[in-house]
Amino acid sequence: MKRIEKVTGKIRKIDPAILQKTQERLDNLTKPLGSLGRLEELAKQICGITGKDSPLLTNKVIFTLASDHGVTDEGVSAYPKEVTAQMVYNFLNGRAGINVLAAQVGARVVVADIGVCTDLKPDPKLVVKKVNYGTKNMARGPAMSREEAIKSVCIGIEIFNDEFRRGIDIIGTGEMGIGNTTAASAITASFTKKSVEEITGRGAGLDDQGLKNKIAIIKQALSLNKPDPAMPFDVLSKVGGFEIGGLAGIILAAAAQKIPVVIDGFISGAAGLIAFNIEPKVKDYMISAHCSVESGHRIILNYLGLKPLLDLDLRLGEGTGGALGIGLADAAIKILTQMATFKSANVSEKKI
Amino acid sequence: MKRIEKVTGKIRKIDPAILQKTQERLDNLTKPLGSLGRLEELAKQICGITGKDSPLLTNKVIFTLASDHGVTDEGVSAYPKEVTAQMVYNFLNGRAGINVLAAQVGARVVVADIGVCTDLKPDPKLVVKKVNYGTKNMARGPAMSREEAIKSVCIGIEIFNDEFRRGIDIIGTGEMGIGNTTAASAITASFTKKSVEEITGRGAGLDDQGLKNKIAIIKQALSLNKPDPAMPFDVLSKVGGFEIGGLAGIILAAAAQKIPVVIDGFISGAAGLIAFNIEPKVKDYMISAHCSVESGHRIILNYLGLKPLLDLDLRLGEGTGGALGIGLADAAIKILTQMATFKSANVSEKKI
Repeated sequence: MKRIEKVTGKIRKIDPAILQKTQERLDNLTKPLGSLGRLEELAKQICGITGKDSPLLTNKVIFTLASDHGVTDEGVSAYPKEVTAQMVYNFLNGRAGINVLAAQVGARVVVADIGVCTDLKPDPKLVVKKVNYGTKNMARGPAMSREEAIKSVCIGIEIFNDEFRRGIDIIGTGEMGIGNTTAASAITASFTKKSVEEITGRGAGLDDQGLKNKIAIIKQALSLNKPDPAMPFDVLSKVGGFEIGGLAGIILAAAAQKIPVVIDGFISGAAGLIAFNIEPKVKDYMISAHCSVESGHRIILNYLGLKPLLDLDLRLGEGTGGALGIGLADAAIKILTQMATFKSANVSEKKI
Repeated sequence: MKRIEKVTGKIRKIDPAILQKTQERLDNLTKPLGSLGRLEELAKQICGITGKDSPLLTNKVIFTLASDHGVTDEGVSAYPKEVTAQMVYNFLNGRAGINVLAAQVGARVVVADIGVCTDLKPDPKLVVKKVNYGTKNMARGPAMSREEAIKSVCIGIEIFNDEFRRGIDIIGTGEMGIGNTTAASAITASFTKKSVEEITGRGAGLDDQGLKNKIAIIKQALSLNKPDPAMPFDVLSKVGGFEIGGLAGIILAAAAQKIPVVIDGFISGAAGLIAFNIEPKVKDYMISAHCSVESGHRIILNYLGLKPLLDLDLRLGEGTGGALGIGLADAAIKILTQMATFKSANVSEKKI
């Protein structure tokens, strides 16, 4: 816990003076005042986060954390559990959705095994920092111990810090874990008090019967384990996942280093919930990339007060929406730093 | 007119078999079925438009057409008329919003003077094909003659065809013209029958008094000129603009060559309305990049049945939203052509 507190203790509120200064600069660029809308807001937020007036977004990193979930024993996913490991190999081969979209925005993908239930073939590109071999079945007891919950967040911090040494200017969050929309739904229900029915979606593609079963299993897990929303590590240990704890650690570690965090979809949002409940100041560092098809995601965004940049009916995860969001962040900063001012371009300003 | 009919005669309806075949291909990629949402829709549309199963989007072009509007005499814009010419120089110097955002997605910007009211300094990068030196004041009579309306569309076709010889795989539409939200609002009112109050926005930044005046001027122009929505060239000539006619020509010419057209904001949308009313089949070739802050834009999108990709409170024009939309089109095609299949990656398929 001390390690986590050391990180959270470094997270500062954004200085409103930087936001104001950046807006003044945006207002001098050759465009009607405010006409780039949310790109301007994004540019301001990134300046605020980094504390720089002309931040460079050279090193873009997407962290894709993989882990397994014991609750898959209850038939909560349309895909077999083996797919988690199979998709890790797909990431390492560079041919999954996240690889394609990360490459488009010039981001590198850091793939980490934080709890896949098998030993994966060694690969120099794969970070292996397992908390354990998958979580336990939350429908029968806690998904993990309190120690494992803390460890998952600490490992997230470690993964971020290791990569930070190689240079990071902005990050995106991503994950892979068959069964993890079940964990994310249970976490969301714990913190937001919305009903499990409202929160729970079809994940990777459940039919009506499967969805009904998933809702029943989540309710069972919540009533059995009674996660306490006042204690984020209690929620994480009882109904969470290792990749979710790991991403919460990454989000906190990034904020401590003044690095903007582009949050992907529903699972990343649940990690955001955990991070926010550990240290609320982290919210200023979060950029919501998109709103997922999973209904619980909008509930998370409302709870956190985040407005998504995109609404493209995505529900793939892996960090794919985050990659698209990083592309928009890049656009926002280029607008701020590369456009001419009215003065330099000899363009007349507003007359009325 | 014959020249325009030759172009519209080439526009074909999209073959649904290509859409179906592309969906099957998307369904074999290592992701839950349909999980890339609107990116999958976009990939299908682009395959349908181009008639290719693996289209390459190598040559991206944004056409930014500039022209002046006589109706600025009525004080309908927050910026002086001179800004049109000043911004053309800014485009040519590569430091306007459109230059920055086009560069980010690897698009080249074709800047054309189709009716700026002064003679611009010669520049090899500037296409000069003036219909006339600005339109006339639509509050006092028709903005242009019927011949000029036809000429503006023909010039758009010419501009597209000249550039097409250099290679084009996808285009975005853009414009610059102080006063052109007034023309776009009047066009939108003519075709959609919505009230001028509902359609008209603040353009580049009118205050309440300015907005009231703009609405009154548009109403005056409509009641004086009585544009006939059954005759698109009548609408274009009475309340249009040269850049709007030019963009309509570019949209039609692109569709005739099976090139996807990413439509930018409100003014480009008004050009889309003209193009659609000349040849309805052109609609399949249009991709709406974003929904502008200008309220008339959503009315256009509803009329055309287009769903915008982005909703970022943009209202700059120039093609800036179109550039962001081209980035998403690129992402969609890369997903289709670069991702592994379940079989090639040895990933198990859905079990239920």
